[in-house]
Amino acid sequence: MQGGCKRRRRARAMIRVALDAMGGDYAPRQIVIGAVEAAGELHDVKVILVGQEERIEAEFAALDKPLAEMLAKAKEAGKIEVHHAPEVLEMDDEPAKSVRNKKDCSINVCMRLVKEGLADAMVSAGNSGAVAASAMFTLGRIKGVARPAIAMIIPTRIPKKPLVLLDAGANVDCHAEWLVQFAIMGDAYSKSVFRVEKPRVGLMSIGTEDCKGNELVHQTFPMLKEIKDIDFIGNIEGHDVCTGEVDVAVCDAFVGNIVLKSVESVAHAIGAWLKMELTASWWRKVLALMLKGAFKSLKRQMDPETYGGAPLLGVPGTVFITHGASSHKGIFHAVRVTAEATKNDMTGTITRAIAAYAAEKKKAEEAAAAADMAQSLS
Amino acid sequence: MQGGCKRRRRARAMIRVALDAMGGDYAPRQIVIGAVEAAGELHDVKVILVGQEERIEAEFAALDKPLAEMLAKAKEAGKIEVHHAPEVLEMDDEPAKSVRNKKDCSINVCMRLVKEGLADAMVSAGNSGAVAASAMFTLGRIKGVARPAIAMIIPTRIPKKPLVLLDAGANVDCHAEWLVQFAIMGDAYSKSVFRVEKPRVGLMSIGTEDCKGNELVHQTFPMLKEIKDIDFIGNIEGHDVCTGEVDVAVCDAFVGNIVLKSVESVAHAIGAWLKMELTASWWRKVLALMLKGAFKSLKRQMDPETYGGAPLLGVPGTVFITHGASSHKGIFHAVRVTAEATKNDMTGTITRAIAAYAAEKKKAEEAAAAADMAQSLS
Repeated sequence: MQGGCKRRRRARAMIRVALDAMGGDYAPRQIVIGAVEAAGELHDVKVILVGQEERIEAEFAALDKPLAEMLAKAKEAGKIEVHHAPEVLEMDDEPAKSVRNKKDCSINVCMRLVKEGLADAMVSAGNSGAVAASAMFTLGRIKGVARPAIAMIIPTRIPKKPLVLLDAGANVDCHAEWLVQFAIMGDAYSKSVFRVEKPRVGLMSIGTEDCKGNELVHQTFPMLKEIKDIDFIGNIEGHDVCTGEVDVAVCDAFVGNIVLKSVESVAHAIGAWLKMELTASWWRKVLALMLKGAFKSLKRQMDPETYGGAPLLGVPGTVFITHGASSHKGIFHAVRVTAEATKNDMTGTITRAIAAYAAEKKKAEEAAAAADMAQSLS
Repeated sequence: MQGGCKRRRRARAMIRVALDAMGGDYAPRQIVIGAVEAAGELHDVKVILVGQEERIEAEFAALDKPLAEMLAKAKEAGKIEVHHAPEVLEMDDEPAKSVRNKKDCSINVCMRLVKEGLADAMVSAGNSGAVAASAMFTLGRIKGVARPAIAMIIPTRIPKKPLVLLDAGANVDCHAEWLVQFAIMGDAYSKSVFRVEKPRVGLMSIGTEDCKGNELVHQTFPMLKEIKDIDFIGNIEGHDVCTGEVDVAVCDAFVGNIVLKSVESVAHAIGAWLKMELTASWWRKVLALMLKGAFKSLKRQMDPETYGGAPLLGVPGTVFITHGASSHKGIFHAVRVTAEATKNDMTGTITRAIAAYAAEKKKAEEAAAAADMAQSLS
């Protein structure tokens, strides 16, 4: 009896992650493998594979023996299940349009599971525009949020102290108010997922002095200074990206996207140069081989797959987008990170932070209005 | 007689580079050493050291024996001279204001030498804002140029095929017309200095599709498509920065500055990780020591000092700005690159390209006006 109780309690405490089985360059094969590994290895996580049932079952049938055994165990423990979604988005589909047209595509079905409380979170390696559009259509926005934002992370010099950069999504032309909200949401994400007690939040600019920046920075800076609940450290610059001394960097998605991709580009170039140098002669090759462990560890540190994915912040549900080229390893980490964010109540933290900000703002506006009235009556 | 003639001809063909002796973190010591090395080693280059004469002479007196000998030889060959400038800009000075107030600071004196034809080009490791302001005050702009821009380079995967990125200067909020001119000037720079026959010019954006980008990109894209004289390859993204497949990347200085500094930041972080890994145990240290040559070569490839400096494009004179932290090596390369740009008529190439663009634009406007008139009369 007691055992049954425990099991039920444990079952209730399990975090149910809806995983889009059809999104990503290597779907459904790599997604299914990653799902089995996540269900098998992650404690208290249940994976709901969402997609065309027959294709998922075919992938199940094709698993090698150790994975097949892992799957059988996970099924028995109720840690993995398949949820049928008949439609699939094609690569050429225009994201926003296609999630409207294909009501029963896997991404939309994942969102509905979240909305209806049948899943606690969702994650997809599909088109990020489609995921964002589907989230907006199905879940809407957290009250007070002007625009949801995608938060990406960049590894820094200090291990396990990544920089959260947002927006890396669709808001390429931003208003100052949006950036302020991104700062609040990024702060909440850093706190709840990376357990940073008091995240240092910076505004991406071209120098650390208060006066540096473009029009948008000049408008945003004084607004961010007003927010009491975040540790706004002022303007930051490109040089601060990888130092580990800043926890959250705020910018519009134009800058965010370019920074992220440039950083990836230079990392690849350095990798290519290093390889060229280390294979320039046979004895360099031999020495490099003996240092394999060091290079592997370096590569792991730079590998985006280990970071799992990027949350869409500002929607009333925990939604993660992971790299389209994710292998099963990337999917495993994506499920892990999504579950962690859910466990740490990322979305709740954001909701409360935005509500507090809205209340504070309203109070300030009312005080200003009262002062105006007092002055005009005096 | 013939010998005298030859010498005179050679003297006339020498490129006279005015070098700001007082600008930079390690001025005047490192500037003076770099100047002596450049005058000693670079063929056909004469260095005019501009600054407080007594301080420069004191540095001359403090040179070690090989450099002192090099200096003596260079002096004898008329390849180095000192030009007195009584005033010095301080680090705290507000750049634009200080170059107005301190009329006889070394940067202004360099510019006057260029303006009066007593030097062919100038280079400074001082405050880039001050150099740009001084150039604008003293030299003005090339006819037709809306805003001068600073072009920086980023090394790519392909050796000796750097990316020219502009603007990296002061134009943080840009109009589309300015970006179009940056593209033309960057093209001319790439052609004349890096000898790229047909530079591939890209517009910095968040995806390669025509429709991707922010407001400014949407305005600039169709205008760039109209320019016949440059090979506009369309939108590029951060991933293209280090591939070596793009020669010129155009953006506003907000994006340019952030990209450059982020790229530097990640390169430093990777260097730090690599060092950490390679010193994690004594045998890794030994192996790494045996691979010293490879790592040195990698470091050289990434070292900004070897790239010399960044030109201020759009002013009627060859003006280079080099890193404030330049050592004598950086100064040597800065003089080298400045002389090369002069030899290759960078400024003339830009002047002609901008004139051709203005003529083309005028023709198009006249044709449009004529068509309008014809339509209204018909």
